Amino acid sequence: MESITSAQNSKIKQANKLKKKRERDKTGNALIEGIHLIEEAAKSNIVINQLFIIDIDRIDGELLEAAQEVYEINLKVAEVLSGTVTPQGLFAVIEKPQFAPDEHQQVLLIDRIQDPGNLGTLIRTADAVGLDLIVLEKGTADPYQDKVLRASQGSVFHIPIITTDLKQFMDEFDGDVYGTTVEGAVSYRQVESQNRFALLLGNEGEGVNQDLLEHTTKNLTIPIYGQAESLNVAIAGSIMMYHLKG
Amino acid sequence: MESITSAQNSKIKQANKLKKKRERDKTGNALIEGIHLIEEAAKSNIVINQLFIIDIDRIDGELLEAAQEVYEINLKVAEVLSGTVTPQGLFAVIEKPQFAPDEHQQVLLIDRIQDPGNLGTLIRTADAVGLDLIVLEKGTADPYQDKVLRASQGSVFHIPIITTDLKQFMDEFDGDVYGTTVEGAVSYRQVESQNRFALLLGNEGEGVNQDLLEHTTKNLTIPIYGQAESLNVAIAGSIMMYHLKG
Repeated sequence: MESITSAQNSKIKQANKLKKKRERDKTGNALIEGIHLIEEAAKSNIVINQLFIIDIDRIDGELLEAAQEVYEINLKVAEVLSGTVTPQGLFAVIEKPQFAPDEHQQVLLIDRIQDPGNLGTLIRTADAVGLDLIVLEKGTADPYQDKVLRASQGSVFHIPIITTDLKQFMDEFDGDVYGTTVEGAVSYRQVESQNRFALLLGNEGEGVNQDLLEHTTKNLTIPIYGQAESLNVAIAGSIMMYHLKG
Repeated sequence: MESITSAQNSKIKQANKLKKKRERDKTGNALIEGIHLIEEAAKSNIVINQLFIIDIDRIDGELLEAAQEVYEINLKVAEVLSGTVTPQGLFAVIEKPQFAPDEHQQVLLIDRIQDPGNLGTLIRTADAVGLDLIVLEKGTADPYQDKVLRASQGSVFHIPIITTDLKQFMDEFDGDVYGTTVEGAVSYRQVESQNRFALLLGNEGEGVNQDLLEHTTKNLTIPIYGQAESLNVAIAGSIMMYHLKG
């Protein structure tokens, strides 16, 4: 097995470039870090092009076989690749899964959510609820960004995520679409759980684009009983997902 | 108005010490940052000992009057006080509110949650739901830590938060106490909303202390329909709070 001891190695430089969304979009690849995420990727039959490991003896043989190429690295190289202060010493370059537009019943629509923790947490909850698709409007955080991957806890490999025009998707969706907003909205409790629905969440500061809100079946809100001005979008979205799922 | 231009000024050094929990516990004070948090503190009648401001003309007169002392600072001093990369240039030293043990009906119990974002978000949701008390076990993140304050969006000033022995609190609480766990738990949907309840959430990795789980009325879980292994604790706790509130 080849050993890489310099951060100037071309494979390391190429892997490191994948921290930029532009490079991920261009190549269709992504860089992921840590045993939990890499195991989730392998379990989900994601193609693992390269595995970079400090301590190869600690890695399961099955995982090594799942990777097309395996390289040993040192701590210096790990520190360059890592997005954290204390790197685990395990990285993979994977092929981002491609999803063909299919028929979907329960969908989460995301209009420009910016915070990676919020997006990752919503992907994790959507997976837990068993939704079958997540659709992102252009301008949403990238699901293959380091912090989103970490907050999603691997759910990014379990549920199809596509980026497309939300308005067009909503027009073609054969089911009720629920927007989320405060003004002119009804309590989410007034809607029953159902087999087919789309839930539309918006940007942390601006909320859902007004133009999209005008094209929903109904707009929902979560009642506030105390003095908080609003709920965090990942919290509100998760409460509504579980409510609609029933 | 006095102008402070050096980070070595004794008032700045004292304010900066409040970033440490030990100093907050010793003095009963806390350092908060940003217009939103400081306005929430003033609205909630929190005592504002000192206000440190770069651009005093941008601050509302009422807020200036609410503070006992006001100082002008420069960017260099703001950078020392700030917990963020781009300081807003507005800081306050406040007295942490003291809450006497009172009769409470709807309570959130937190057993050693570590992530400041999780704790802050839970405080925000508990405020939104209208709970009347939050009880922390020793070892939980400090609510007056920078990142908790930010995630709580000021809700830390709206709802009493105390640190005490959870087991003793549970023994004395006159109402049902619901633990959260996976093993031996029933779906949260099997419990009805009620006027008087306590909800017990646990550490991100370890969950709720087993000893506490054995002293609950019932232990609840949220069903997972997809491939996610679990839900984030702030998400799970928020879903259950809204469910129990009804």
